[in-house]
Amino acid sequence: MSIVVVGSVAYDTVETPRERRERQLGGSASFFAVAARGRGPVRCVGVVGDDFRAEDLALLARHADIAGIRQVPGRSFHWSGRYHADLIERDTLATELGVFADFQPEIPASWRDAEYLFLANIHPALQAGVLDLMRSPRLVALDTMNLWIETTRDLLLAILRRVDVLLVNEGEARLLTGERSLARAAAAIRAMGPARVIVKKGEHGALFFGRDSVLAVPALVLDDVVDPTGAGDCFAGGFMGSLAEAGVGRDAPDAAFRQAMLDGTVTASFCPEGFSVEGLLRVDDAAYARRLAELKAMMVP
Amino acid sequence: MSIVVVGSVAYDTVETPRERRERQLGGSASFFAVAARGRGPVRCVGVVGDDFRAEDLALLARHADIAGIRQVPGRSFHWSGRYHADLIERDTLATELGVFADFQPEIPASWRDAEYLFLANIHPALQAGVLDLMRSPRLVALDTMNLWIETTRDLLLAILRRVDVLLVNEGEARLLTGERSLARAAAAIRAMGPARVIVKKGEHGALFFGRDSVLAVPALVLDDVVDPTGAGDCFAGGFMGSLAEAGVGRDAPDAAFRQAMLDGTVTASFCPEGFSVEGLLRVDDAAYARRLAELKAMMVP
Repeated sequence: MSIVVVGSVAYDTVETPRERRERQLGGSASFFAVAARGRGPVRCVGVVGDDFRAEDLALLARHADIAGIRQVPGRSFHWSGRYHADLIERDTLATELGVFADFQPEIPASWRDAEYLFLANIHPALQAGVLDLMRSPRLVALDTMNLWIETTRDLLLAILRRVDVLLVNEGEARLLTGERSLARAAAAIRAMGPARVIVKKGEHGALFFGRDSVLAVPALVLDDVVDPTGAGDCFAGGFMGSLAEAGVGRDAPDAAFRQAMLDGTVTASFCPEGFSVEGLLRVDDAAYARRLAELKAMMVP
Repeated sequence: MSIVVVGSVAYDTVETPRERRERQLGGSASFFAVAARGRGPVRCVGVVGDDFRAEDLALLARHADIAGIRQVPGRSFHWSGRYHADLIERDTLATELGVFADFQPEIPASWRDAEYLFLANIHPALQAGVLDLMRSPRLVALDTMNLWIETTRDLLLAILRRVDVLLVNEGEARLLTGERSLARAAAAIRAMGPARVIVKKGEHGALFFGRDSVLAVPALVLDDVVDPTGAGDCFAGGFMGSLAEAGVGRDAPDAAFRQAMLDGTVTASFCPEGFSVEGLLRVDDAAYARRLAELKAMMVP
């Protein structure tokens, strides 16, 4: 079944202790689309400037339908950051919205019937705009960040009532709810609307709070991290792709979502092994199966 | 089978955002002993000053053999710290060694045959002194910290060659090995001696690196944290108690150690629910069984 994703299609300038990459393909919708590829038609909604390279659009077009990406005069969204020695902590050096500042999402009419919708981390008014365009998705998931929780709280709360799965990190869960305990925070978020909450913890894995169960999935223990940018969006891509492939809707039991948590984790594990989407692009079925087996072996009590 | 633990028996002054407790029972050997109780005779080696309250010695004596704790003139070891609002980060306000400065561990002759030895986080020369006194333990585990890694590295490396399980946190694993990746750090530590390495991650759980397997155990998701002091030593107590109860020695397969990881995690989960050892003392068989079932349910893929 098909998945619509709306988010940023962007350029990232990334500095790690070993290397610096200038204006490489990035953005939440890009990572999501490449991560979800092969699991169902993926349809991207976004905007890029006239500086966006044809080869990057072509790369995305190999993995997703990009009819929802408009190219307009101006500069593409550009994020620039520097990672610390631990390759976990990072400083944002610049966030240049460019053409994203005036982004008004539109979607091809035929996409309105897509079964799955992922609202990546953008202004909640834009997220709501896309949700309004959809006919009756089987499942809607949403990502957000501190900025929107702090500055557009009412808009965010309004859209959360219409969302099935919220993906946040620990700090965002606490900021949104005022609860220090993640157990209490998840319960408070579920009372806001989303029946399921995923708390992403980076190199510590992710927690799934479902209707009647909790699952803790560890992150794979990687030998080498090159660039962790985008891993959270890759998790979302693997997770939503897994649900779409299996046809899991909001009424399915927690068990169906637990499998998707594993797929999200395995998918995300390839992202930090390369810059941009390079790590993801190296994955083949055998590598995926090996890592899924490794993850399960790490989890079995 | 019996367990000897050597470590601090101390007083902690703890400030949390909600409450301050002055000179409450603490110290690695105290937490370990109460955590391991009921799983085999636990024998404590340590030193306290003449300020140490008879009621605290009596409490320890209810759960462990304290014939190895000497009371000498002077002040007991005293640690004082303040937790941040997240109840995770903390600042050490004072560390007063007191009688611990001149501590020379001695053990009753009959304890030399104990099967299990836990060398809690103290100067590696003292750890080595106790290990020298033991006849032929089935398993030796050791905890350490940045201070010893930085200031007594050679002594630490010498004793590591005689240890079966090393327990460290992430930062210590990296400092000891110079490896950023925990996978590489664990491999490097195994090359130093310990066949098994446990990386403690606090509220994120713990990783077990065995002879031929890796296990990630999440922490239980607690509704309420009162005082996390001592949770790492409680993990060690539950872990070693589990091994002693089952008679698991260094030659046992990884599977036997994986069960002990769960017992360590469940035991440690009760510690932050009260000040000092209060959370541990509230545990009964039913509460333990409930939480073990909860942990397994969180882990099953």
